[in-house]
Amino acid sequence: MNNTLDIDALVARIKAVLPESSEPIALHEPRFQGNEWAYVKNCIDTGWVSTVGTYVNRFEQSLSEYTGAKHAIAVVNGTAALHICLLLVGVERGDEVVVPSLTFVATANAISYCGAVPLFADSDKATLGMSAAKVDEFLVNHAEVRGGVCFNRQTGRRIAALMPMHTFGQPVDIDAFLALADKWKLPLIEDAAESLGTSYRGVHTGNFGIVSALSFNGNKIITTGGGGAILTNNEALAKRAKHLTTTARVPHKWSFVHDEVGYNYRLPNINAALGCAQMELLPEFLERKRQLAARYEKALKDVAGLRFFVERDEVHSNYWLNTILLDQQSMDHRDHVLEKLNISGLMARPAWVLMHKLPIFAEAPRMDLSVAEALEKSIINIPSSVILS
Amino acid sequence: MNNTLDIDALVARIKAVLPESSEPIALHEPRFQGNEWAYVKNCIDTGWVSTVGTYVNRFEQSLSEYTGAKHAIAVVNGTAALHICLLLVGVERGDEVVVPSLTFVATANAISYCGAVPLFADSDKATLGMSAAKVDEFLVNHAEVRGGVCFNRQTGRRIAALMPMHTFGQPVDIDAFLALADKWKLPLIEDAAESLGTSYRGVHTGNFGIVSALSFNGNKIITTGGGGAILTNNEALAKRAKHLTTTARVPHKWSFVHDEVGYNYRLPNINAALGCAQMELLPEFLERKRQLAARYEKALKDVAGLRFFVERDEVHSNYWLNTILLDQQSMDHRDHVLEKLNISGLMARPAWVLMHKLPIFAEAPRMDLSVAEALEKSIINIPSSVILS
Repeated sequence: MNNTLDIDALVARIKAVLPESSEPIALHEPRFQGNEWAYVKNCIDTGWVSTVGTYVNRFEQSLSEYTGAKHAIAVVNGTAALHICLLLVGVERGDEVVVPSLTFVATANAISYCGAVPLFADSDKATLGMSAAKVDEFLVNHAEVRGGVCFNRQTGRRIAALMPMHTFGQPVDIDAFLALADKWKLPLIEDAAESLGTSYRGVHTGNFGIVSALSFNGNKIITTGGGGAILTNNEALAKRAKHLTTTARVPHKWSFVHDEVGYNYRLPNINAALGCAQMELLPEFLERKRQLAARYEKALKDVAGLRFFVERDEVHSNYWLNTILLDQQSMDHRDHVLEKLNISGLMARPAWVLMHKLPIFAEAPRMDLSVAEALEKSIINIPSSVILS
Repeated sequence: MNNTLDIDALVARIKAVLPESSEPIALHEPRFQGNEWAYVKNCIDTGWVSTVGTYVNRFEQSLSEYTGAKHAIAVVNGTAALHICLLLVGVERGDEVVVPSLTFVATANAISYCGAVPLFADSDKATLGMSAAKVDEFLVNHAEVRGGVCFNRQTGRRIAALMPMHTFGQPVDIDAFLALADKWKLPLIEDAAESLGTSYRGVHTGNFGIVSALSFNGNKIITTGGGGAILTNNEALAKRAKHLTTTARVPHKWSFVHDEVGYNYRLPNINAALGCAQMELLPEFLERKRQLAARYEKALKDVAGLRFFVERDEVHSNYWLNTILLDQQSMDHRDHVLEKLNISGLMARPAWVLMHKLPIFAEAPRMDLSVAEALEKSIINIPSSVILS
């Protein structure tokens, strides 16, 4: 009976890690205890809440300094960042883009906005992200490179990009994806929406792809209300990103000329002001989140029927969402565990429903997705707010 | 020499209307003198800056109450509102949508986002907006209704919607557009991005279209930093608008199921908080803007070579941007007037470059656009901020 999941014991162990609370404990809530109010008040006092103002530049610079990426372009949310990343690497109508089936819907939607189609990839148990080995196996069997361009022989469509997502802040096996991108001539985009603060072999995530996307939604490690950013080390792409996200207007003192179909994706100054204050707190947030994860790890070590997901050796994770993985024989109890946790005032949730199961993506090409399907039944995210440590 | 434009006299007359200022006077800047601080601080203090929080509902309710539209759905900006409006009336890839050539690029871009094509329409000198008569004339010659659907015989494409824009807050001839929409079986969308506060025959703009779009960008009569809204009197469309703008997620306590390709277009709570405070000030803003316009009207009455644009009898305008129209024989001096005004510290700008002249819309169908072309050479917007009265 050693391997049998004891749900009551699990609830008790989690409760022991967390502070006493008469209110339900959120999965992830923001914390504002720095200069948020001072900076936002400054925006209101000067009247610079919108597109004019200095906080957007300052926020972009602090993102660039923190991540080490040469350029950061602030945008209205992570979905907008993903959309622009895809356009920047040249994704066009009718193309396919390789993405994990285990991801938030924004990853796949951004591909739809380009008129392209997601090619759903399986997961890697070791990273919770897309499996480079499974993608390679699929491409070996079904794709070919002609004239430096990768084609899916099954559908006849061009495969235009590779877009792994760093799940819950835990990065994919980036070295393997760099090799894969090189082998199959595929531009690499990192969906780093969840991984601000996470580095891989000492380099911040978002620096490995040609372009990368961050998110500062209300549930992320830092928040701007709604917001996101594009990271890149390529100056020309950075300029084009700024241009595309600001209606592609050609600079002029009064004339309105736009040289591309552009987007109204710029981040308002008032949201950037919040971001500047949050970035000042990020090192402390990161430390607190890692402390919380360490306490969960210890507390859940000998609970039968599950394991707590721990970063790999080459990773320094932001532990955005703490994750427990139910063993094979406990997976059938996932919804029961979720009910019990939520009823006990501990907000918990499963992974997203796999993208290939959504009717909107019923026609999308895919590979064997058995690992993703097992992970979907196994994953439970538990309370992860900075404030809990 | 009576009709010759005297630019120095024009500058002096405008200056006489405006307060003394050592700084250049902006075209349109926001004003925050109400509850902006209190509401935004409340967001930060409660941690509810993002998608959770009460200000979004409150802002939507105040928009609904003020405009008289049954439903208002707050979104991230006016461009997003236009995009969703087009989807709501069923615009699809390959369709055409009738829009004015004289408009901001967002109107036409939103059509591109749907994979549809703008059909550029001429302007009406009396309204500065799209000409219902010219559209009717074009449709009589080139379109036909088959099975309740309007087709462009020249291109073979379906014409899927009619989307006039209320230029600088001055509404189009709405009665004529309602008749046109009925005659040609075209859903009417109002691009009311510039017309919050403007009514037509006693009814607020945005109530005549099946759906309508508002904008609260930093240069608008009220601002949320960046923001917009969809107005509708149709409950089913309102529900679908909320669904499409919130990633089309099917409500569930933890499961993430999305039943359409959705968008991350919701307005963050912190921006909505700003909007709630600004809505409280709107009646005063409107009064001040109408006072400023009345003073301009008086001051520019007898300046040769131009006229100040005044609302028609059936209109109560927000006078978002005050507009002077150069006479035929003065139009060649437009850029000279703009230079002189800007050098004198009075920020002024021309109308947008006409959409059909932008290379990105070079292939778009169009009708005779002679009135729009004359207006483009004739229009100059002059300082219009609330604070100037």
